[in-house]
Amino acid sequence: MSEGFLPPVEDRPAVTVDVVIFSLVEDDLKVLLVQRDRQPFLGQWGIPGGFVYRHEALESAAARKLDDETGVKNVYLEQLYTFGSPNRDPRSRVITVAYFALLPYAAIRELDEARASWFPLNALPPLAFDHEEIVQYALTRLRYKLEYTTVGFRLLPDLFTLSELQKAYEIILDERLDKRNFRRKILAAEILQETGQMKRDGEGRPAKLYGYRDDAITEIKTRRLFP
Amino acid sequence: MSEGFLPPVEDRPAVTVDVVIFSLVEDDLKVLLVQRDRQPFLGQWGIPGGFVYRHEALESAAARKLDDETGVKNVYLEQLYTFGSPNRDPRSRVITVAYFALLPYAAIRELDEARASWFPLNALPPLAFDHEEIVQYALTRLRYKLEYTTVGFRLLPDLFTLSELQKAYEIILDERLDKRNFRRKILAAEILQETGQMKRDGEGRPAKLYGYRDDAITEIKTRRLFP
Repeated sequence: MSEGFLPPVEDRPAVTVDVVIFSLVEDDLKVLLVQRDRQPFLGQWGIPGGFVYRHEALESAAARKLDDETGVKNVYLEQLYTFGSPNRDPRSRVITVAYFALLPYAAIRELDEARASWFPLNALPPLAFDHEEIVQYALTRLRYKLEYTTVGFRLLPDLFTLSELQKAYEIILDERLDKRNFRRKILAAEILQETGQMKRDGEGRPAKLYGYRDDAITEIKTRRLFP
Repeated sequence: MSEGFLPPVEDRPAVTVDVVIFSLVEDDLKVLLVQRDRQPFLGQWGIPGGFVYRHEALESAAARKLDDETGVKNVYLEQLYTFGSPNRDPRSRVITVAYFALLPYAAIRELDEARASWFPLNALPPLAFDHEEIVQYALTRLRYKLEYTTVGFRLLPDLFTLSELQKAYEIILDERLDKRNFRRKILAAEILQETGQMKRDGEGRPAKLYGYRDDAITEIKTRRLFP
């Protein structure tokens, strides 16, 4: 293949997008999977995805797949990594640009339960293609981002108590965090603001409801928050 | 296009890899550019790249391009981002998986100067395609990684004084760092080891030569180092 010339069409790969969609569902970090209704991997679960249209931007294709599956638009969507092992699809060379999306569970319309379902990260079924690797890669990225940025908050409702926020961190990181330490660090990061509202948190005293600061920067500037 | 079926070949994009190659050259952070010898963008400079062979992994294609241009193998190579705007190439749909590479200048063989040259980041010529965007994206990633990881060290020789290390950080971040603060933080990160050797650093007293700790973790665990 001569550099600078386009390769013949029969040498071109197909290109897909796949979207790892995370949400916090009933105290579990879950990922949305769809059951394949055709070969290859008929009947197996996988992350939602599909071919990129000829005149479609990659991000638009990912947003389209996300909307198809959840009815949700305008949520946090980030390009994750491009997976292109020559034999990852038994049919032909297929390169996939993987994205990950974070959405609050309340934003999601009812799923088409005949084909889509939420699975906890620690109880995934066998996945089609290299989707297991893609999901694990996305989980690593999510945990990393949670410690350096505010994107993890996209999984939460607009208002939350510090206990709820800590619990979300603990679920995603899969580790217990010290309460006093968590509060000190998260408040020092200057990304939260009090709303003046209170919420009865379990059986204890009413707790302050927080939201994000309007001017909160995406990247936590001070330092790595945890551990 | 029916989901699950492969799209017809005439709908498939061509896929390239492009590699942003950084090195520290004479107190400047520079990027390796090649001059295009054919259309489109004939005569303009761009980052090295080319089509992915039919049975070639993406990372192998990037390593091949890097070797073609510099004669260097086994250096730090990381997938950066996939750029796929439908009209980024005037010929046809071309999606490019961009990588960035860091290499110590001493490792590079002589360039083919008729077509390749090092350019300082602050004095780039007009670039072909969307390569300006790709280079800026790579620079942002490099600066970010320098603050959170040890990958920046790949730009340095195996042994260096703390002054040399600080200078490298200053060049890449494009800002002055406080000497005392830099030394305290970089030593606290537990990624350096003394070698027992000394080097006369400019006109001052001999300075200790450091190397990386063999057990140094890639990710700086403690906290963001700078500012």
